Amino acid sequence: MKIQLAIDRLSIERAKEIAKEAGPYIDIIEVGTALIKDFGMLSVRELKKEFPDKTVLADTKTIDEGAYEFTSAFKSGADIATVMGAASMDTLRACYETAKKFDKNMMIDLLAVEDKKIYILTEFNDAIFCIHSPSDSREQTIGSLLKDFKSKFPGISNIAVAGGVNHETINTIKEAKVNIVIIGGAITKSENIKKSAMSFREML
Amino acid sequence: MKIQLAIDRLSIERAKEIAKEAGPYIDIIEVGTALIKDFGMLSVRELKKEFPDKTVLADTKTIDEGAYEFTSAFKSGADIATVMGAASMDTLRACYETAKKFDKNMMIDLLAVEDKKIYILTEFNDAIFCIHSPSDSREQTIGSLLKDFKSKFPGISNIAVAGGVNHETINTIKEAKVNIVIIGGAITKSENIKKSAMSFREML
Repeated sequence: MKIQLAIDRLSIERAKEIAKEAGPYIDIIEVGTALIKDFGMLSVRELKKEFPDKTVLADTKTIDEGAYEFTSAFKSGADIATVMGAASMDTLRACYETAKKFDKNMMIDLLAVEDKKIYILTEFNDAIFCIHSPSDSREQTIGSLLKDFKSKFPGISNIAVAGGVNHETINTIKEAKVNIVIIGGAITKSENIKKSAMSFREML
Repeated sequence: MKIQLAIDRLSIERAKEIAKEAGPYIDIIEVGTALIKDFGMLSVRELKKEFPDKTVLADTKTIDEGAYEFTSAFKSGADIATVMGAASMDTLRACYETAKKFDKNMMIDLLAVEDKKIYILTEFNDAIFCIHSPSDSREQTIGSLLKDFKSKFPGISNIAVAGGVNHETINTIKEAKVNIVIIGGAITKSENIKKSAMSFREML
């Protein structure tokens, strides 16, 4: 199981420091949406430049202008970019084609997407599907979201999980055998970044 | 009817030049999503600094982390920020409350939102509702989208229209009496920015 470290709501310099400390224990550096909206693609370029051997994900949360935003992310050094599952199929297809063109990956963020749409999204069978418990509403635990999803969509195998992942919820996720677990604040806001990242790695 | 000039896919310097040329004929300067994702909130700060007396809209297209993104936009000088109608109600409420707190406005982007959700969104009765024909798919004309919308949601009065607005489509929009017409490429990509902006103003 890969660990994706979501870095957000910080300066680019602090983001680099955190990525450096957590680096040996994580697989993917996520340049979070807030980092992108605060500093633009500079944040992606700076993190890729500093960590050229790490997989870098740009959490663009694209919902329109798929080709433009994905091209911009990949040209800035991202290896994966994200599109909202709630986007139109035209936007999703534009993102998918752009990812293919650059030989990069697409992650579909399933935030606020209804089940009937998810069935349609399975046409992107080599995309990463991100089950996302939103920051703004956490009425359903990540464990229960995950269990529901796996029973409804047994055909989707490349799964990432995000939102509220911490030392309490990590075991449920481990049991569910997802591909990528996305951890943010539980590492970035901890007093000891290295120790926290290492403990997650050990638990997985 | 107000004209909102959507500026996108350019450098901040070029955005400023365009806003200056079109300035006398438009009411709202939109810092487009691509400008924000390319350059971050710097784009909003720079445009507001240059045009302190104009209404500046930050097209953040927020879909999570409502309070953070709206606070960031307003602190950067935006007078209006945008949230996706497809976001969760918690995110939408967080955006709405943040707008109230800063005494600023919220625009709800109705891109890829189903009718049943729009009915729920009417709780934000003083928000601006943006009917948005997406860049990535234009199978329905803006005129027909608008007509549909007005017959389905007669209670929504504060309406903006975006996507494919040009000299051909402007008359349909004028007849529909919306509050804000959002014009992008038809002005920003024209050979004579000033002349194009002026002609739209005259037509309205």
